[in-house]
Amino acid sequence: MIRPSTAVFARPVTLTRWEGVVHSDARDVVAVEEPLEIRIGERGLAVVMRTPGNDRELVAGFLATEGIVRQRSEILDLVYCSPEADAEPNVMTVHLAPGVSVDWERLTRHTFASSSCGLCGKVSIDAVRSIAPSLVGTSVPSRVVLEKITHGLRERQQGFALTGGVHASGLFSADGGLIVLREDVGRHNALDKVIGWALLADRLPLAECILVVSGRVSFELMQKALMAGIPTVAAVSAPTSLAVDFARESGQTLVGFVRDNRMNVYAGTIGR
Amino acid sequence: MIRPSTAVFARPVTLTRWEGVVHSDARDVVAVEEPLEIRIGERGLAVVMRTPGNDRELVAGFLATEGIVRQRSEILDLVYCSPEADAEPNVMTVHLAPGVSVDWERLTRHTFASSSCGLCGKVSIDAVRSIAPSLVGTSVPSRVVLEKITHGLRERQQGFALTGGVHASGLFSADGGLIVLREDVGRHNALDKVIGWALLADRLPLAECILVVSGRVSFELMQKALMAGIPTVAAVSAPTSLAVDFARESGQTLVGFVRDNRMNVYAGTIGR
Repeated sequence: MIRPSTAVFARPVTLTRWEGVVHSDARDVVAVEEPLEIRIGERGLAVVMRTPGNDRELVAGFLATEGIVRQRSEILDLVYCSPEADAEPNVMTVHLAPGVSVDWERLTRHTFASSSCGLCGKVSIDAVRSIAPSLVGTSVPSRVVLEKITHGLRERQQGFALTGGVHASGLFSADGGLIVLREDVGRHNALDKVIGWALLADRLPLAECILVVSGRVSFELMQKALMAGIPTVAAVSAPTSLAVDFARESGQTLVGFVRDNRMNVYAGTIGR
Repeated sequence: MIRPSTAVFARPVTLTRWEGVVHSDARDVVAVEEPLEIRIGERGLAVVMRTPGNDRELVAGFLATEGIVRQRSEILDLVYCSPEADAEPNVMTVHLAPGVSVDWERLTRHTFASSSCGLCGKVSIDAVRSIAPSLVGTSVPSRVVLEKITHGLRERQQGFALTGGVHASGLFSADGGLIVLREDVGRHNALDKVIGWALLADRLPLAECILVVSGRVSFELMQKALMAGIPTVAAVSAPTSLAVDFARESGQTLVGFVRDNRMNVYAGTIGR
């Protein structure tokens, strides 16, 4: 039931690799991203999206950096809690030593009610899809447009050029026209600003649009894109395993490593 | 009282620039990171660490991607709430249209009790410091060691080499010996794994140690490092404004852009 706690960084995925107009099936590896729910006794403390492996360290470190414990002796045990024998070990329960109390009021930033946790494994993906709008439109994004707009994103990034530390999200029309570009130190914030712009302009859902992001593509970015009805996400960098899974199950197109006239299609299909 | 909602990506900082053994005072810009508390009516919904500007879009997008609203008409107003006239506008209140209800149970992942928010501006920094251990030791990190260990971090990164999408945190002794290295898709997780390793080995606080991180340095990384008693943080990339502020007020040493025999010292001092 309990997987050894060695890190598993990479998982193989199938993809379609484009080089110019030539495309072929290929295999590559992506970084593994999975949710881990941390519980103290029966109560949910947090869900973190992490690379499996060294989970006991991750939980112990979380407890230390949140100020819950200061030394080893305050932790009695750290155990995986898998209600089903075949489930991924994505829930870990902390047993604190007698006398160690938790100030739940102070911890509320990360607190969530365990019963309604919507992020653990398959449950999460289904939960998000159940409240997301349906993807509208059947146009297939073109390689030429994806190449052009991804290349254009960095040229338009003011913040990155200034500081080297800012992420960008750009929303483009199917023919490659820029709709809106936003930057932020947080990759999720840059996307939320783009989607918020669209909401305030009463343009949701964003059917037929293409989202380009400056960094890596995580599960949470794909989830946010789906909530806004965005069918296609392109990135200059790599997606995580859960981003690929989520895109495939949601019917989104996910394209990564768009650079130098090449790109990897991890989910969905593109045209020339 | 209300600052115009234009993005302010960069803020000037003073620093000491080292090139080989030569060092000089310099000025540069860093990406601006500040907390924004989002409230619905009187109740706190979330705190996000963001780049100020387009805050109404950020909040609207957050509401959309969390499934709270689907269209413009469900939002009556988005207003800054600054109890003190000279305060930074870092709290925004959402007024939803009559009839729009919030399923707080479902939103618990991001929920926190507003009254105990410890993240808004100065309050946050003071709150963290009040529960962090004191920094122990007076040794000044050496340029030669910082150069060596930062260079060594990437060579040792297994996950990054495989996938191009994994962050690393490495803990080193003052003389440059590797203590522990961890990788994760989440930069905070990689650090929590390092600190958790130390906690489980009963080695907290990590006096005299040097932490090296693979990416940018945010406020939250400096906060976690301080909670573990780590006095020095080095990165191959840039720090945010709040990371610099926090390091200075905490007495931590913060070194960025360690590459090619050069480095920028944003807080504290280093030796040859």
